[in-house]
Amino acid sequence: MTVYLHDIPLDEAKARFEAVLKREDLWGVLGQEVISLDENALGRVITEPIVAKVSSPHYHAAAMDGFAVRSEQTVGAQPSHPVVLHVGDQFRYVDTGDPVPAGFDAVIPIENIESLDEAGEIAGEIRRPNSVRIRAAVTPWSHIRMMGEDIIVTQLVLAAGQTLRPADLGAIAAAGYQEIKVALKPRVAILPTGSELVPIGSKLEPGDILEYNSLVLAAQVRKWGGIATRMPIIPDDFGEICKRVTEIAPEFDLILLGAGSSAGAEDYSAQVIAKLGSVLVHGVAVRPGHPVILGILKIGNRTIPVIGVPGYPVSSAMTGEIFVEPLMAMWSGRRAHEPLVKKAEMTRKITSPGGDDDYLRVVVGRVGTRILAAPLARGAGIITSLVHADGLVILPRGVQGVEAGETVPVRLYIRETDIERTIFCIGSHDLSLDLLAQFLAKNNRRLISANVGSQGGLVALKRCEAHMAGSHLLDPETGEYNVNYLSTYLPGVSLKLVALVLREQGFMIRKGNPKKIQKLSDISKQGILFVNRQRGAGTRVLLDYQLGLEGISPNSIQGYSQEEYTHLGVAAAIASGRADCGLGIPAAAQALDLDFIPLFQERYDLVIPKDHANSPLLAPLFDIINGKEFSSAVAEMPGYDVSVMGKLILET
Amino acid sequence: MTVYLHDIPLDEAKARFEAVLKREDLWGVLGQEVISLDENALGRVITEPIVAKVSSPHYHAAAMDGFAVRSEQTVGAQPSHPVVLHVGDQFRYVDTGDPVPAGFDAVIPIENIESLDEAGEIAGEIRRPNSVRIRAAVTPWSHIRMMGEDIIVTQLVLAAGQTLRPADLGAIAAAGYQEIKVALKPRVAILPTGSELVPIGSKLEPGDILEYNSLVLAAQVRKWGGIATRMPIIPDDFGEICKRVTEIAPEFDLILLGAGSSAGAEDYSAQVIAKLGSVLVHGVAVRPGHPVILGILKIGNRTIPVIGVPGYPVSSAMTGEIFVEPLMAMWSGRRAHEPLVKKAEMTRKITSPGGDDDYLRVVVGRVGTRILAAPLARGAGIITSLVHADGLVILPRGVQGVEAGETVPVRLYIRETDIERTIFCIGSHDLSLDLLAQFLAKNNRRLISANVGSQGGLVALKRCEAHMAGSHLLDPETGEYNVNYLSTYLPGVSLKLVALVLREQGFMIRKGNPKKIQKLSDISKQGILFVNRQRGAGTRVLLDYQLGLEGISPNSIQGYSQEEYTHLGVAAAIASGRADCGLGIPAAAQALDLDFIPLFQERYDLVIPKDHANSPLLAPLFDIINGKEFSSAVAEMPGYDVSVMGKLILET
Repeated sequence: MTVYLHDIPLDEAKARFEAVLKREDLWGVLGQEVISLDENALGRVITEPIVAKVSSPHYHAAAMDGFAVRSEQTVGAQPSHPVVLHVGDQFRYVDTGDPVPAGFDAVIPIENIESLDEAGEIAGEIRRPNSVRIRAAVTPWSHIRMMGEDIIVTQLVLAAGQTLRPADLGAIAAAGYQEIKVALKPRVAILPTGSELVPIGSKLEPGDILEYNSLVLAAQVRKWGGIATRMPIIPDDFGEICKRVTEIAPEFDLILLGAGSSAGAEDYSAQVIAKLGSVLVHGVAVRPGHPVILGILKIGNRTIPVIGVPGYPVSSAMTGEIFVEPLMAMWSGRRAHEPLVKKAEMTRKITSPGGDDDYLRVVVGRVGTRILAAPLARGAGIITSLVHADGLVILPRGVQGVEAGETVPVRLYIRETDIERTIFCIGSHDLSLDLLAQFLAKNNRRLISANVGSQGGLVALKRCEAHMAGSHLLDPETGEYNVNYLSTYLPGVSLKLVALVLREQGFMIRKGNPKKIQKLSDISKQGILFVNRQRGAGTRVLLDYQLGLEGISPNSIQGYSQEEYTHLGVAAAIASGRADCGLGIPAAAQALDLDFIPLFQERYDLVIPKDHANSPLLAPLFDIINGKEFSSAVAEMPGYDVSVMGKLILET
Repeated sequence: MTVYLHDIPLDEAKARFEAVLKREDLWGVLGQEVISLDENALGRVITEPIVAKVSSPHYHAAAMDGFAVRSEQTVGAQPSHPVVLHVGDQFRYVDTGDPVPAGFDAVIPIENIESLDEAGEIAGEIRRPNSVRIRAAVTPWSHIRMMGEDIIVTQLVLAAGQTLRPADLGAIAAAGYQEIKVALKPRVAILPTGSELVPIGSKLEPGDILEYNSLVLAAQVRKWGGIATRMPIIPDDFGEICKRVTEIAPEFDLILLGAGSSAGAEDYSAQVIAKLGSVLVHGVAVRPGHPVILGILKIGNRTIPVIGVPGYPVSSAMTGEIFVEPLMAMWSGRRAHEPLVKKAEMTRKITSPGGDDDYLRVVVGRVGTRILAAPLARGAGIITSLVHADGLVILPRGVQGVEAGETVPVRLYIRETDIERTIFCIGSHDLSLDLLAQFLAKNNRRLISANVGSQGGLVALKRCEAHMAGSHLLDPETGEYNVNYLSTYLPGVSLKLVALVLREQGFMIRKGNPKKIQKLSDISKQGILFVNRQRGAGTRVLLDYQLGLEGISPNSIQGYSQEEYTHLGVAAAIASGRADCGLGIPAAAQALDLDFIPLFQERYDLVIPKDHANSPLLAPLFDIINGKEFSSAVAEMPGYDVSVMGKLILET
């Protein structure tokens, strides 16, 4: 069976592509065009230096509203020995920007003269005298913008390769230009292929895959200065794909041939490229991204580079960043994007397959003095991992992984200032945190929450890896929430324990309750498949506590060891038929259109070390949970009681 | 005489504007529109949260090409005890992305099975057996992308207020959207007014002022997410301006009324705004920017904010940054731009009028361990100071200035990585440095040169404020260049003295030599007005040396004390009639279409402390001056001899 590809290292793959593009004279700016100098030139790259055609100012100009004089006639003027000048040969009125009349060599601002009559000309509101008295000599060329003060003719105003910013456009205009030569925008065609693909907005049947890679690629191309054209989806039909590629290729500078998600689909891409040109690289040792194809097409007398883009959405987007962006930059005359790199400590150990450059998506924040990088989901199918990513950590080939606490360079997607407004909340998942994130965003804070269960959150706080933790840990001895766990997990740490909500916990079941589940003890019945939360989750503690009270053995529960990390994860397992019931919150049940059987009420708190509780970073959080707007919004969610919100349960 | 305005502090000006905009319900997003989810949505701001309408995947999907199995049927499989499965009820073929058939709960990748026959179905290149042997048990749900793995229906995918990036568009599509609600783009009209203004590309007469402020403002508005419309220039005619504003205002969300450059012109703006609405602020204590007007227009039943923009180009652009950008951000749902702030040491003492917030444009680079900010020209008319600016230093009201060496926060325009690739060259001016800058740019270096004369450059090196200095200091005792000055100015500093060029120095004179100047001694003739270089400039040293040789007294030279800082400055003085002759280089004469009388040849060197000479930062510099391409380009300039280029004159 044909299985996999010849994965070659990224550098070598790029070098092969580069060698061929150089040979084909496609290495550098693709061409230039003349455009008129208007606001559409913003962001374009000039291909020729801007050498001033005129000086600016192009004449000696008055820099103030006032009086042009001959400086030699002011010599000797003093407060006690004023000099009187008469309009005409001795002074002339000038407004700012007026040419200084020939023979005059200084301007005295209007506020520095004494008017000797008010009978003179009136311009606007300003009376212009015929004679003035001055009480100070002026130096030659004072209050005059000399010809060339800003730009001298023939001076280099902007070097070729400049990406034009607003002020640049002004300087180019000042230098006497009306048109400029700029690099052509690269034209990129994006062709999604795959019989299983359906366009955005389709009603979905099982097996249908929404085709949005072309949208992401098109937006990337646009962002990087190219012109993107999305083509309709082509089914897995070798002849049809060849035909479409042959038809459109002559109009483009680059073809992105998007494969469907299966390994079979991308074989079509390789075959098409081999038929219409040549495959230079098939399979690159990067992940996500592996089955990238680099090639060239020979159509008519043109050579057109082509990239076979893998089908998984993260692989596709990373292929854009790794392979398409540098081409767009080079072709449009810019330097390739250079991300800001910041050192950060990994919060978790990560293993990596050693043979690949491994691109981890991470979130980044500062806790105390440390900058932390927390890895996101690694699956190539998880587009939300890119949405949430604050940066990339690249584990190079030959590296088997990183340890928790190890310092790694992070290539930031965000701005450095974003790190400083980031609140890390780790621990138990509650839907009110999503709402809280939205309220915090309006207050210039980014709330990033990671769901590791209540106990996991306390452990993270102990390690100083978060600003706060969400927790709902029931103490089986006392029936109290969280308090006793704090002394166990966070001994000696000064902190605030603040109540957020009371919420119902109960069974989520499929609509209509097909398995006739009524009460807790029903989960050990024959034929009932349960889905559990992970060890350390507050919901798991609650379940175990209640099972203990009722004397139900976990061994009697089918699916007890099947663990999910969030309420929504449990709900999704039930909705999809993977399980029949699970313990969780009503909002999660409602979200997936499940029925809900309320069983218990519990308190969900925020645990906040004092150092953070008193910091400006968290100040808006307290405003929000003590205000009315947020609590009203949370109260609208089913099963939530906000009467305790903001209550200080414990301060140590 | 009406002279100036009521300058109020920036905060107060903004607060007045804010209060009125809030009252008029213009504080916040201006409105929303529904757009289709395509690449044009890039950069738009969503006004509603994206809550998933579907899960992604929306079914349990095979994550690999392979065989869907029932995990319970694999229990006990071991290398020595394989289990045999038959197609149909025991396994099914699945490609990546295929739905896992009902009742099956795991996928075994194609490479992990042993085929027991080759008679089965053939799909593409892959032979599909009817029976397979497996030698390992699989856990439930392995190699399956479970429904909701990426997105679970009802999950918050993106919060309102998100500025859409490429991956966001993919996630929104995955969440089941085909259209999105985004903030309307603010519509901004820009009306330049002023009878002295002429459009870009006009043939210029003295007194004409090129109108490019509207271009810069339009590009700014566009950059900040608005739709800019530039209107034709309106002459200074009160009635006409009122008429045009009244006509267009109903179609826009903001009017920028650009004043001509004179104080008189901007009075029209204030009068127009007062007539059509009200002036809230006239004059803000910021510079450049002073005569800003903030107001509102009442036209029909609409209230339209209006900003009277000062006429000087830097003032105009800064008005954009200070007043327009925050409005654009708020109206389109973004947070206002937050520049990256970096601490830097000022290279020069700067005095400031304590009454204003003073926005200094600076260039920024790192020399050794220190980050330095060197101030650029401060004139409000010098648009190139914005083009060259790497950032702004704001000297707040009440501060009279900063000392050289004082640490100040710089609001960066550039990226932090740009600081690290910046080479500061200070000292004498030579035109070959412009060419050098272009060559260095291709090697990922930014050359920033400041012209302070040869001696000034050595002083700057002594203070560790530059990476290298350009110098052509003649020792009158020995006739040698630079060497002896190094021990005086840089005692004990290890450095390299590298020759760059031999160049002619001579008299620049107006075309046709109207004053009949032939030789050095002619400059003391009656009626000849000389323009000199500043003290410490190599050209000045050369002049004084040659005057000494010929026994000519500086006192006999009219204009000897009139100083310019660059060759082009001297040339411009002669071209404009401010002087008749000056000493300089032929390229400068040619640049301004002057005649040139060659008098002397001199050597221009680069002085480079060893710490920098051996750094990776400067490595490309040596490659360039030792290569052929650069020397050929320099040799094409008139009066240049490149035979010495790259020669190591001295190493200490």
